[in-house]
Amino acid sequence: MARIVQKYGGTSVGDVDRIKNVAQRVLASRAGGDELVIVVSARSGVTNELLARAKALSPLPSERELDQLLAVGEQETIALTAIALHAIGVDAVSYTGAQAGIFTDKGYTKAKIKTINPKPIEKDLKAGRVVIVAGFQGIDEEGQITTLGRGGSDLTAIALAAALKADKCEIYTDVDGVYTADPRVVKTAQKLNEISYDEMLELASAGSKVMQSRSVEFAKKYGVIFEVRSSFNQNPGTLVKEEVAYMEKVVVRGVAVDKDQAKIVVSNIADKPGSAAKVFRALADANIIVDMIVQNVGQGGVAALTFTVPSADKAKAVASLGPVLKETGGEVTVQEQIAKLSVVGVGMKTHSGVAATVFQQLAEAGINLQLISTSEIKISVVIALDRADEGARLVHAAFGLGEAKPAVA
Amino acid sequence: MARIVQKYGGTSVGDVDRIKNVAQRVLASRAGGDELVIVVSARSGVTNELLARAKALSPLPSERELDQLLAVGEQETIALTAIALHAIGVDAVSYTGAQAGIFTDKGYTKAKIKTINPKPIEKDLKAGRVVIVAGFQGIDEEGQITTLGRGGSDLTAIALAAALKADKCEIYTDVDGVYTADPRVVKTAQKLNEISYDEMLELASAGSKVMQSRSVEFAKKYGVIFEVRSSFNQNPGTLVKEEVAYMEKVVVRGVAVDKDQAKIVVSNIADKPGSAAKVFRALADANIIVDMIVQNVGQGGVAALTFTVPSADKAKAVASLGPVLKETGGEVTVQEQIAKLSVVGVGMKTHSGVAATVFQQLAEAGINLQLISTSEIKISVVIALDRADEGARLVHAAFGLGEAKPAVA
Repeated sequence: MARIVQKYGGTSVGDVDRIKNVAQRVLASRAGGDELVIVVSARSGVTNELLARAKALSPLPSERELDQLLAVGEQETIALTAIALHAIGVDAVSYTGAQAGIFTDKGYTKAKIKTINPKPIEKDLKAGRVVIVAGFQGIDEEGQITTLGRGGSDLTAIALAAALKADKCEIYTDVDGVYTADPRVVKTAQKLNEISYDEMLELASAGSKVMQSRSVEFAKKYGVIFEVRSSFNQNPGTLVKEEVAYMEKVVVRGVAVDKDQAKIVVSNIADKPGSAAKVFRALADANIIVDMIVQNVGQGGVAALTFTVPSADKAKAVASLGPVLKETGGEVTVQEQIAKLSVVGVGMKTHSGVAATVFQQLAEAGINLQLISTSEIKISVVIALDRADEGARLVHAAFGLGEAKPAVA
Repeated sequence: MARIVQKYGGTSVGDVDRIKNVAQRVLASRAGGDELVIVVSARSGVTNELLARAKALSPLPSERELDQLLAVGEQETIALTAIALHAIGVDAVSYTGAQAGIFTDKGYTKAKIKTINPKPIEKDLKAGRVVIVAGFQGIDEEGQITTLGRGGSDLTAIALAAALKADKCEIYTDVDGVYTADPRVVKTAQKLNEISYDEMLELASAGSKVMQSRSVEFAKKYGVIFEVRSSFNQNPGTLVKEEVAYMEKVVVRGVAVDKDQAKIVVSNIADKPGSAAKVFRALADANIIVDMIVQNVGQGGVAALTFTVPSADKAKAVASLGPVLKETGGEVTVQEQIAKLSVVGVGMKTHSGVAATVFQQLAEAGINLQLISTSEIKISVVIALDRADEGARLVHAAFGLGEAKPAVA
C-alpha cells in the first residue's frame, strides 16, 4: 500500500464534468488500496474573476483582503470534489488550508509554508478516507488566511507529500509532461521521461509554464519525487527527481521562452560602492524577483544597471526605485516587447560549445542579443519579443532536441 | 458614540456597484463617529449557483461538504466589501465566521450559535476599524465550518449585536420595512413604523419573507432592538422591539401568505396513545419543522393526522415516516398547491371577532378552509394556492389595513 499525493490544476477541475472526471481517476487510483491525498486548485477562471471584482473596487486592494478573497476558489473545489467522490461511493473529506494545518508566515499573497501538522490528515487516511486539500492557501499563527502565490497549489501538494512522507506525488495538469520546448511553438518538441530537479528549476525560471521554481526547489530540498502528467489521458508523464538516467550524456535538455518579462534600465547612477546594493535592496524590499542583471562599466562617474523583472511587477519596481534614485541619482526606463530565451541541461557545464552554438544560431538569423546570463546548467538571452518563437525553434533544432531521444554529446 | 451592527443582504451586495453603494452608506454612518460592525451575505445568486453545482454532482450532497462549499459566498463578499471601504479611505478588516469567533454546534446546514467571542472584533473596533463579518457561517469546536441555514446572516447580525452589546442593529434589505401585507400582492399595504417581536415572529412563521423566525426569537431573547430598512434609499424602516406604541388598540397588524408549504396527511394510523408522538418524533429527528397540526377524531380504531411542512422538506418528511408507519400502520399522502394565509396582531387575543371576520370573508368568496390553527396573536388557514392572493386582499381590506394607520378596534 502506497501513500500518494495527487494535485489537480484549475483546468482539470474547471467544471462539474471535469470534477466528475477527477473523481473517477481518484476511484481508479484507490482501487489498488493506496492512501490518497488530493490537492485541488480553484476552477480555471475563478481566481481571475475574483481578482477582477477586487480591482473594480480598488486599483491596489489590500493583500490581506485579497488572500481572504482568493482562498474561496479552492474552498469551492474541495467541497465539490468531496461531493463528487461521495456520489461514486468513495469516502472522502475536504480540508481548507487552515483545517489541513498548513501554517505559513504572514507574507500575504506570497506566503511561505512554515510547518504542516500532518495529524488530522493522517487520522482520516487511517480511517480509509480520501483527503482533499485546498491548494494555494494556508493560515498564519493568528488565524489569518494566506495564499502562497503563483503555482501555490503545486507547492501545497509537494509540501504535503513531504510532511506525510508520501511515496509519490503526481501533479496533474493539462499537458502530458515536460517537453524539450513548448509544443505550441516548436512542433518537433519531445516529451521527456525524466528530468532532474536542477534542470526543471532552470526550465521553470526560464519561463516554462509547467511549474513554478519554488515548488521544484521545495521538492529538491525534501527529496520529493514527483510526476507531471495530464489529467485528460492515461499517458505516462515526466518524472522529476535528483538523479536522471543518461544525465551525463545529455548536453541540452530543453529550450524555454519567457515572454512575461520586462527589462529595466537604471542609467546615470553614481558609480560608487553601494549604489547597486541600494537598488537591489529596494527591489527586494518590495518583494520583486529580479532575474538577469548586467552592470555596465562606469564612465564619467556614472554607471548603468540593467535587469529583468516579471512584467506584472514593472510598475511596482519603478515605484520602489524612486526613493533610492533621489539619493544616488539616475533615471529608470522600462523596455517591454522583450523575451528571454533559455537553453537548459546538466551536461552543459562540461560543454563550453553550447553558448557558442546558441549565439551563432541567433546571429545567423539576425536576432540581436540584448542581455546574456549563464548558470552552470543554463544559458539565457534577452531578445526581441517578436523573434522569440523563431529563436526557440532554431536553437531547439540546433541541439537535435526534435529527435526521438534527447541530444547526446 | 454608538455601536451599530448593520447587515446587508445578498441583493444589497449583488455586484461590484452595489458593494460600492454599501461602502458609501458605511462611510456616511461612520461620519458621526459610531463604531460599526457590518454583516454581509453572499452576493445574490451565488449560494444557488454553488448549490446547483453540488446537486449536479450528487442528488444528496454531504451536509458537512455543503457547508464547506456555501461558506465561500460570504467570504467573497466580506473581502470585497473591505476592499471597497479601503478604496474610499475607510479603515476596515474582514472576518470569516471562524475568525469572528462565532462558535456553533455541529448541526451542519442548520447550525445553532453557541457562543461568540467578542474580543477580536472589540480590538479592531477600538483601533478605529470598521469590522466586516461574514454572515450565515460559524465554526464548531473542532474547526469544522458550519452554516446557520436560511436567514442565517440576519441571525449573525443580531447575535453579534447581542455579544457586542451594540446600541442598535440595522437589517438592510431590498424592501423598506415590514408591511401590513406583501405590497406586490396587496397594493394598499402600508409600511409599519414599529412592530413587536411577537407580531414579527408570527408574521415570519406565517411566511412573511422579511426575516426568519429564529433571528427574531434571538433578538427577543437578548432584547436586541433592530430596524428593518432598505439599502437602496434613505427611508426610515420598521423598528422591531418589545413594546410598541398603541399596541393595545391594534387588533390586526398584518396579513401574510406562505406559498412554500406542503400538506401531509397520515391516514389510517392506529388510534392509540403514542401514535402521534411517534410520527412527530420521527419528523423532529429528521430536523423537519412541522407547522399546523390537526388530528381527526379516530373512527374504527384508526385516525388521521394532517400537518404542513416547508415544501423543500416534503420528500425528507415522507422518507422519515417510513419506519414509523411500518410499526403503526397508515399511509402518507402529500398535497401541494396549498397556501397558508395568516392574520397577526397582539390586540387579537382580546377580540374574538377576528377569527369570525376572517372565516366570513373567505366563505363569501367561496374559498374553502382546509386547516385552521390559531395562536394568541395569529390565525392561520390553509387554502388553495390559486386563491391565496385574493384571500390576502380580502382579509387585508376587511381589517382596514390599507388605510394610513393600522386598524384600531
